[in-house]
Formats: sequence, structure tokens, C-alpha cells
Amino acid sequence: MTISNLETQCRDMAERAKRAASQLALASTAKKNAWLRAAADLLEKQAETIVAANANDIANAPGYGLNAAAIDRLTLTPTRIRAAAEGMRQVAALTDPIGEVREGGVRPNGLQVLKIGVPLGVIFFLYESRPNVTVDAAGLCVKSGNAVILRGGKESLHSNEAIHAILAGELANHGLPTDAVQLVATTDRDAVGHFLKMNDRIDLVIPRGGESLIRRVSAEATMPVLKHYLGNCHVYVDKAADLDMAARIVINAKCQRPGVCNAAESLLVHADVAPIFVPRIVALLRENHVEVRGCEATRKLVPDVSLAAEADHAAEFLDLVISMKIVADFDEAIEHIRRYGSQHTDAIITSNIQTARRFTLAVDSAAVVVNASTRFNDGFELGLGAEIGISTDKFHARGPCGLREMTSYKYIITGEGQIRG
Amino acid sequence: MTISNLETQCRDMAERAKRAASQLALASTAKKNAWLRAAADLLEKQAETIVAANANDIANAPGYGLNAAAIDRLTLTPTRIRAAAEGMRQVAALTDPIGEVREGGVRPNGLQVLKIGVPLGVIFFLYESRPNVTVDAAGLCVKSGNAVILRGGKESLHSNEAIHAILAGELANHGLPTDAVQLVATTDRDAVGHFLKMNDRIDLVIPRGGESLIRRVSAEATMPVLKHYLGNCHVYVDKAADLDMAARIVINAKCQRPGVCNAAESLLVHADVAPIFVPRIVALLRENHVEVRGCEATRKLVPDVSLAAEADHAAEFLDLVISMKIVADFDEAIEHIRRYGSQHTDAIITSNIQTARRFTLAVDSAAVVVNASTRFNDGFELGLGAEIGISTDKFHARGPCGLREMTSYKYIITGEGQIRG
Repeated sequence: MTISNLETQCRDMAERAKRAASQLALASTAKKNAWLRAAADLLEKQAETIVAANANDIANAPGYGLNAAAIDRLTLTPTRIRAAAEGMRQVAALTDPIGEVREGGVRPNGLQVLKIGVPLGVIFFLYESRPNVTVDAAGLCVKSGNAVILRGGKESLHSNEAIHAILAGELANHGLPTDAVQLVATTDRDAVGHFLKMNDRIDLVIPRGGESLIRRVSAEATMPVLKHYLGNCHVYVDKAADLDMAARIVINAKCQRPGVCNAAESLLVHADVAPIFVPRIVALLRENHVEVRGCEATRKLVPDVSLAAEADHAAEFLDLVISMKIVADFDEAIEHIRRYGSQHTDAIITSNIQTARRFTLAVDSAAVVVNASTRFNDGFELGLGAEIGISTDKFHARGPCGLREMTSYKYIITGEGQIRG
Repeated sequence: MTISNLETQCRDMAERAKRAASQLALASTAKKNAWLRAAADLLEKQAETIVAANANDIANAPGYGLNAAAIDRLTLTPTRIRAAAEGMRQVAALTDPIGEVREGGVRPNGLQVLKIGVPLGVIFFLYESRPNVTVDAAGLCVKSGNAVILRGGKESLHSNEAIHAILAGELANHGLPTDAVQLVATTDRDAVGHFLKMNDRIDLVIPRGGESLIRRVSAEATMPVLKHYLGNCHVYVDKAADLDMAARIVINAKCQRPGVCNAAESLLVHADVAPIFVPRIVALLRENHVEVRGCEATRKLVPDVSLAAEADHAAEFLDLVISMKIVADFDEAIEHIRRYGSQHTDAIITSNIQTARRFTLAVDSAAVVVNASTRFNDGFELGLGAEIGISTDKFHARGPCGLREMTSYKYIITGEGQIRG
């Protein structure tokens, strides 16, 4: 395929997505929900077909250099397909953000002003490896009235094609435009560059994957990007902490699912409680197979802890590793978080209400947590019902992005002939 | 000044703005309001100083090629300074969007989740000519907790410097960081390019001026841009319109202030009412010194109307000119607005509730108006209290942008030791 052919194909997909988006914007909630439920049923019914397509991807995986963990993430089983289908049913059960009256009232001159949820339009969604994301993304986009162009990893192309055929096929059965869910069938990397230029047809790009993917997309995109960067999440154990609670939370934040963005990567301990707490938490972390990399002061208390390098304090390990630092006071903790943090999720453990309040004010992160695990910064846990990612930006949406974060709004102003004086 | 010196100066300003922003984010509402009121008083008290500085700009204006209208917009009088000061007092009276609890509740596991307003950080504000915008922008930015770097037009540099000296001087008197309001003192155009590269220090750029300024900024900026593009606003007079109301609204929307973005630029008339309405509205528009450029069908009803070119239907005249088209039906009106509109403000005049509802659904504009003037799409009129512009984007903020649209939010999650299972 020549580049100019590829570009034409991409432009054509985007144009069809744009047309589909303007139809989908007017689709009733009932139709969208019926599609979500029917597509969920069909995914389960055709699980064998999907698993067979997935087997192709798995057979090719070693050729792409995938290791065992990556192959596991790529693998679809009937159980995993059922879970993805169940996710679609949950999205069907959520309130439709389109047409929702967000604010409203009557102005002194009698004009009624309503602020109403509307879709963004066309979303270009880029993701790596896990094919069940295809289901999640399509469900969230269609429910929020947005057409989506899906571009998965080359490793999961056959799985994605099988899933996409089911999802798109069901759209027409429910009076929805088939082009509302399109899959980029080529694995040509140039296609991404073409889409990122089309800000006349694509309203938002969501890259979900490693830092290099997100950096490339941010640099090239001519339309807004919903970014989901690093999560170097801190737990700060204050001098007024309940140390039993602190230990429980640190272990949960670090170990319950170490490979995700809201897992703790850095532990800060107030010097006053360090002599008691540090030996205890190091032992507990080690029981949980966590490697601790500590500051000099940590090593004075537990000599066999390895010395944390500067880079360790800034790292998102996504693994059973944690950096640790003993801080002289609250201000040093804040300063450390400002310097090394990623403005994602940071927690304090304290029983002092003033300290808690100062922490929530001073830490400029999407989620600031008091006396609970960092793992709660999550769309389901915060009540959004589902999420397409956790934004580390402040513009448009911050933190978990659910259905509402994939929308905009319009003002509807209704009068009886009012004019301005 | 060499370019590298200029770049260093710009980076230094942005760095100081970033530090000021982190202090300002924690400033109390009382302090911010005290500054707004004191600065307003001082602007009035030092009106003579400002007028004298402004006289310098006016003396230089012909050299910059400014015409009489532009010089009028540049001119500051004690009355205009009083109006700007009054604007600051009005901003002081508005609710502080920082710390505001936007949503909140308790999750089933007992976690309290609050969604709290926080500032964006550092705003780079570019604007042309009118020096009172310096006052408005500084007031809105500080009240919303954001540090601002102001870059006005070269034509108003002396006026802006005089105003800035007063505003920044008062910051320190109220315990606020002086660097929260900075003015770019050089007229070197390269400075803009340097600032637009600093997405590590500047969180948002707001260009306010002509289309070419906005296009340049959008193309060069590495941070989000709050855009305020064209307003090609339509009034569609439906077959079920109250024609007296329609005439009143068309005249108001076109003539009350023709130079602004929410003024009507295009008139669509349903064919069924055209024979009665078109001759009448053309006569009324002409009484109000408006030039009408119509379609062939219009010219059959009023032969001496000039023929509208394709470009006229797409134009934002910002002047006493209107394009007119007779449409066969509702769908043709919608199609015309989709093709030529700017998604800013579009109105329908109709007494039919179904037609009104179809219009508000089908027209994808920031404000859709039923039986009222397009001129109501304005921050003050919609109850936002003040505005820094009207966004024509869907991302982050759409329509009038007041204090809240200059903010983000954070989640504060408070527990008693909750961990994830």
C-alpha cells in the first residue's frame, strides 16, 4: 500500500466516523443500551470464534518478542470474554450523560438557560496489547454518543478484528450507524500519524499504553489528547499516624496490584515515628516480596536495605519495588512529593485533622487520599461506574475519566421574544 | 537584546509565575477579594496617571496604522477606567471557584469523596489593543487562583504598563505574590514563540484577538489553548414563527452591537413565510442601515437586494451586513447551519415545540437559542458573572468562560483505614 493510499483510507475512515458521530449524537438511550446488551450477549455466544482468532495472535506473539506476562495479558478465555461482556452490561446500566441537564435556571429577564451534556464527536483511541480494551472502549464511546476509531496493537489484531466484527455488526441491528465503531485494520504505523493530523474530523485522541506511545501522540496530535502518564504515587506516614493503619494501607497500596498506575511507588515516613515504623514496614514489605530501596536514614534503621538512587524516588516501578525516605517534617514530605511526584495519587496517614487538611491543600494531585489506600483512585471506586483512563492533566478532565468526561455541553436558551437592551 | 537573552527572560518570567501560582493556589478568598477591591480603588485614584500613559499610546497610534475606530478602542478615559474598576469589584463579589465542592458523597465502603475546584496554574494571556482587558484578565485570573502572564498589543504598551504597575503593586500589600500578575514588557514578537514552547511552566494559553492571532497560537502552542474563533451566528425564522417577534429578534441580534461575536450574521427564512416576512425584514434592516445580501429567491421578493456569494454565507461580518437565504424546509435550515455555521450561537424563532426541540438537538453549537436574541450568549447574561472569552471548542470549556472555566478539580478521598480487597 502506498502512503498516499493509506492516507486516503484514513481520511475516509475519519470522514465516515464524523458522519456516524452526528447520527449517534441523536440516538436514544434505549437504542444505545439495547446495543450494549445485545453485543454483550453475542460476545459470550461467539466466545469460541473470538478464542480461535486470539489463538492466531498468541501463535504470532513470540515473533513480536512478547514475554510470558505479555502473552498472558493478550490471552482471551471464555471467562475473560464473559467479564468484558459484563462490563458492557454495566455501562448499559449507567446514566446516559447525553441530554443530561447539568445546570439550569431562569435568568432575571425570564430566559430559561439549560446546560446540556453533548458528545465530543469522534474519538481516536490507541491502545496496546490487551484485546478486552476493545470492548471497554467501544462501549464507553457509544454510550457517550461518540464515534470511535480503534487502533489496537499489532499483537492483538486478529482478536480485535473478531471482537470488532461482532460489535459493529450489532450496531446496524439496533438502528445505530455501523461506522460509529471502526477498527484500523492495517498495522502500518504511518496510519497513526495520518489520523493525528485530522483535527477537522477527529475531536479527541486517547492513547493508552506506555510512556513512549503517549509522548509520541502528544507531540504529533493536532487535536486535544487525554493523557494518562505516570503514576508515581506516594504514601506519607505522618508523626500522628495510626501505625497499624499505616502498615495496612502501605501493604495494600503497594502489593494488592503492583502493576497499575495507582499503586504506591514511594513511601515517606516522618522522622519521629521512623524508629518504630520503618523496621516494621520493611519486614512486612519483604514478607510480601517487595524490594525496598531506602535513603541513608532508612539504612541506619535497617542496614540491609539497598540505597535508593535519585531515579528511584522518581520511578514508577509497576512492580514489587518501593522507594523509601525518612523526612524531618511535614514540609519536607510536601517538598519531596512536589519534586518527585507525578500529580496522580498521593496519600497521607495521620490522625491530626489540621495536618490532613494542609496535605490535601498543598498536594496538587488528581487524587489526594487521607487514611486510605492510593488504589481507590479509580473510576469504579469513586462512583463513575467505569473509566477509559485516569487523566494526569488538568485541562478538560482530571483523574478517572468515565462517561461524563467523554462529553462536552451546550447551552440551550429559551425565551419568549427577549432581546438585549 | 539577543534571542537567547529574550528566551532566558521569558523562561524566568514563566518560572516566577509558576512559583507565584503555587502560593496563589492557597490564598484565601478574603485576600483575593481585598486585592480586587483595593486595586479597583487605586485604578480610579490614579486615573490621571493611566490617562497620561494612554496619551503616549494614542500619540504613537497613527504610526502603527490604527484607524479612528481602533484609536477609540485604545483610548482610556476616567469613565472607562471607572468601568474597568467596577468590573474588578464585580469579580470580588462572585463565588470563589477554588475550594468549591463540586460533587461529593460517601461510597458504600465509607470513603468520603469530594471533588474540589483547584486553579489551572499559569495562564498566558495574549490580547490586542483594548487596555481595559488588562484589568479584566488580571482580575479573573487572580480570583480563580491562577498566575497570569499578560501580553498586550504593542499599541497599548504604555497604558498596560501603567495599569500593571498598580495591579502588581497592590498584590504585595495584600500578602499575595507580586509575580501572580506579570506583563511582558518587550514588544518583540519572538517572546510569544518562547512562551508557547514552555508547557512545563505554562498550563493554558488564551489568545484574544483576530483569527490570525488565534491560528498562530494554536499552531505553535505546546500547551492547551482556550480558543475563541469565529461567530457566524444564524437566526432561522421557522414557518411557525411569530413574525413580529422574529423581526424584533433579527433586528436586535444584528444591530444592537454588530461588532461582537454573538451578533447575527446570517438569516434563514422558511419559504412558507418568506413572501410576508422577507420584504418586511429587508425594509427594517435597511432602516437600521444594514446591507442585505440574499439568495436568488430573496431577490425574487425584493429585487434590489444584492446577490449573496458563497463566501457571504460563511462570513463573520462584524459589521452592518447580513446574508439571507430562503430555505424550503427545516432540514434545509439545519443543513445550511451545519455547512456554514461556526458552532457558536444559532437561534430559531418558532411557536412549535417539536420544531424547537428538533432544532436544539440538531444544531451543534455552544449556545442554541429559541425565541430570543443570539446576543444572550454571554457570560454576564447566562449568569457566569464575568467572562474571559467564549470558547468555540468542546474540550474543557464550551461557550462563555467565567471563573469556573479557568479551573480544574481534584478528588479528596478520606477514609478510616480503607484498603482495596
